[in-house]
Amino acid sequence: MTEFRVRPIGRVSSELASRADAPRQGDEGAPDAALLIDPEASAGLAGLAVGDELIVLTWLHEADRAALSVHPRGDRDRPAQGVFTTRSPDRPNPVGLHRVRVLAIDGASVRVSGLEAIDGTPIIDLKPVLGAIDER
Amino acid sequence: MTEFRVRPIGRVSSELASRADAPRQGDEGAPDAALLIDPEASAGLAGLAVGDELIVLTWLHEADRAALSVHPRGDRDRPAQGVFTTRSPDRPNPVGLHRVRVLAIDGASVRVSGLEAIDGTPIIDLKPVLGAIDER
Repeated sequence: MTEFRVRPIGRVSSELASRADAPRQGDEGAPDAALLIDPEASAGLAGLAVGDELIVLTWLHEADRAALSVHPRGDRDRPAQGVFTTRSPDRPNPVGLHRVRVLAIDGASVRVSGLEAIDGTPIIDLKPVLGAIDER
Repeated sequence: MTEFRVRPIGRVSSELASRADAPRQGDEGAPDAALLIDPEASAGLAGLAVGDELIVLTWLHEADRAALSVHPRGDRDRPAQGVFTTRSPDRPNPVGLHRVRVLAIDGASVRVSGLEAIDGTPIIDLKPVLGAIDER
């Protein structure tokens, strides 16, 4: 099947330096971080406001794209599961899905709450949280 | 910045033939549809069960990737907004985010509820809904 090219729109700036440091989900003690949006894409931020909830899609560039099954939470005592039933970063297309809140906006730098992506992770999209779709 | 290659893991089979037919969100009258997962990726479905809630990530292959601002819901009487504050399919990396429920599983064909993607839309990832992250 056809392949598609993902062109990052920016990258994460975070105190998390490696996968070993990163919590598994944003609500497991992840630090605040900055989304540094590239100048070519920053017009896409128009209308964004402090307090907004966002879904950040990242490309988990250190993932193992050959993985189709994983042991949940890396625990080899638990039976392996298909990757599509887990949130493991290791999967054919390692898109990370992160829900955050906008804390501050300074030009094309967006400060957000609790993001478990490591420093330098490419950002590929930002979407508003829609209550009716994402919350119920 | 580096580009990445997305390799679809399957495609949507739907009665929706074109963007003109598709509702804007899955809860706006979208039909049930099938996720046809490619044989090379189908091992990733292991453990999936009827009733599970899934996030389906698609590649909206008909999108305008040059768009950085859009009129909400295509209404030119409304002021344009940055694409990252909207769910428009037109955006630099046109990843579609769809929340569905698994209705039936037949091998690598997964029947799901209310999916607004058109027939043939490439699927790039499936993730389980995590209550703590996605629902609150």
